[in-house]
Amino acid sequence: MSEKYKRLISKLLEGDIRSAARLITLVENDIQIAEKIISQVYKHTGNAYILGITGAPGSGKSTFISTLVKKFIEQEKKIGIICVDPTSPLTGGALLGDRIRMKQHFSMGNVFIRSMANRGQLGGLARATEDTIKILDAFGCDIIIVETVGVGQSEVDIFKSAHTVLVLLVPGMGDDIQVIKAGIMEITDIFIVNKMDLPGADRKVSEIVQMLELNMNYKFDNNNLNEDFAKINRWTPEIIKTNSKTGENFENLLEVIAKHKEFLLETGVISNYLKSRIKSETLKILKYKLSQKIEKLIDDSHAIEELIEEVKERSMDPYSMANKIVQMLGIEENF
Amino acid sequence: MSEKYKRLISKLLEGDIRSAARLITLVENDIQIAEKIISQVYKHTGNAYILGITGAPGSGKSTFISTLVKKFIEQEKKIGIICVDPTSPLTGGALLGDRIRMKQHFSMGNVFIRSMANRGQLGGLARATEDTIKILDAFGCDIIIVETVGVGQSEVDIFKSAHTVLVLLVPGMGDDIQVIKAGIMEITDIFIVNKMDLPGADRKVSEIVQMLELNMNYKFDNNNLNEDFAKINRWTPEIIKTNSKTGENFENLLEVIAKHKEFLLETGVISNYLKSRIKSETLKILKYKLSQKIEKLIDDSHAIEELIEEVKERSMDPYSMANKIVQMLGIEENF
Repeated sequence: MSEKYKRLISKLLEGDIRSAARLITLVENDIQIAEKIISQVYKHTGNAYILGITGAPGSGKSTFISTLVKKFIEQEKKIGIICVDPTSPLTGGALLGDRIRMKQHFSMGNVFIRSMANRGQLGGLARATEDTIKILDAFGCDIIIVETVGVGQSEVDIFKSAHTVLVLLVPGMGDDIQVIKAGIMEITDIFIVNKMDLPGADRKVSEIVQMLELNMNYKFDNNNLNEDFAKINRWTPEIIKTNSKTGENFENLLEVIAKHKEFLLETGVISNYLKSRIKSETLKILKYKLSQKIEKLIDDSHAIEELIEEVKERSMDPYSMANKIVQMLGIEENF
Repeated sequence: MSEKYKRLISKLLEGDIRSAARLITLVENDIQIAEKIISQVYKHTGNAYILGITGAPGSGKSTFISTLVKKFIEQEKKIGIICVDPTSPLTGGALLGDRIRMKQHFSMGNVFIRSMANRGQLGGLARATEDTIKILDAFGCDIIIVETVGVGQSEVDIFKSAHTVLVLLVPGMGDDIQVIKAGIMEITDIFIVNKMDLPGADRKVSEIVQMLELNMNYKFDNNNLNEDFAKINRWTPEIIKTNSKTGENFENLLEVIAKHKEFLLETGVISNYLKSRIKSETLKILKYKLSQKIEKLIDDSHAIEELIEEVKERSMDPYSMANKIVQMLGIEENF
């Protein structure tokens, strides 16, 4: 552990925003460095409440988050926002270069926004997001919002860290439920029908209710907990209509988020949740470490070039090649 | 290798569609069985030309593919379609239950559609897609279309198998380029401005041109080939406006696809491409195998329960836990 990291971490713990930003860049870019930093930071975490927010493009996510953040600021909360959605205009850093919308919060000094767009591989992205959450937690954020684009398995992976998952839908967008459905729906705690002033808001609510009824049988909980436990202590997803421009129903939303937090604490779900989160996180780190090693091996090894030639000529198939590599590594006997 | 699989495979090679469907289900559901089947099927592959087609929801992908498929049928091609997009109405099996749109092709007996929606994990999905491609290849498909939703790293992974990658954009959808941008753009061979009858088609073409110019410096090729080789033998992405309803410009599109195929063959890019595809595929299999083993280990082991408790109390961090597991497995010394 170099002196540089130690200094950054002690400044992070004092609430220095530049050190937070620097440490996040460090953990994002290199898992070896991430390891050194997180092993020091970890004991200072566990205070932040993590919200996962997702929704298809067009659902008004950024205005929604802006409004929500204003409400949290009124409660004197310190807030961290992690944008995993590459199209997010919240920082837009990576793609749109427009930091204007959230600027008023920046200057208030209690909102920290970070875009994780385009950071390497998926496994790497989920891992980097987890580590960024930890740094913002140690930085003293009361609430950490993780924003994703909400289509596909990657989000499910990223949302394993969230205490409360919010999914935004809008009236009249016929296929948004379909888009969101694949995997995200099962882990949603609160459905938001945003842009409630548009026609069809109530129909959208009915669609969600219908979908939830259809899926009651296999919906358990956030984190693959013990099924019996989860069945008894099951959170019934709530549906809230909001207008992010006027702020309508946001007080109600804050209450429901608080209610979900209470549910997690009172039922003890939060302890199981933490356990399953640790499992999934360790798994992510393990997979990522092993993947990196294997990739390096495949790129470097002469023996593997020969195997590739055989597969190219179709005298060997890719599965047999994978098995040969497992043998070469002596991995088999250790499992 | 059981007799059942052998019989299915020999019927597959004779072009029996039910055997194809059955074998795909088998490889999808179980990597152990996939291994047995693919090791027999692999030597019969290598004839199909693989098209990757993607586009944001609303870009008219299904009508586009329907029209494209009709053109291929006119050329007496046998076509396989793999829908990785969970929202795809092409089969819609998984989510919408509507197989109507493509039915006319079904009945002609030379189009086979398969939805891969919601099949397990991402790594598993990419792996299952690769294996499905191989079965359709051995089944005798001349052309295999892989359809995805086009946002995120998962598609990049899936498209590593495609010879030619088509991305659909539409006039007036402001943010579709932004959505597609993250990773997909770099591997696109042909940009389609679909719904060319809508206002703004030419502006969309300019936007694509602009984006391509911006990215010229880091755009190399489909498959992380040797950079120098790729620089010399670089395909300049083409842009084609289409109207999927009238079929306008589809002849032109077919010519450009043929031109890209010729490019791959004449430059020898296709050989490098195959090599890099084998690498990435073996890597996928290896990662998937190791992941499964690690997941099983983490779920079963008592020793790991104890580590989790330590992390829960924050007397250990997840990275240290991952390292302990690597040690327990004796993996370290083999790398």
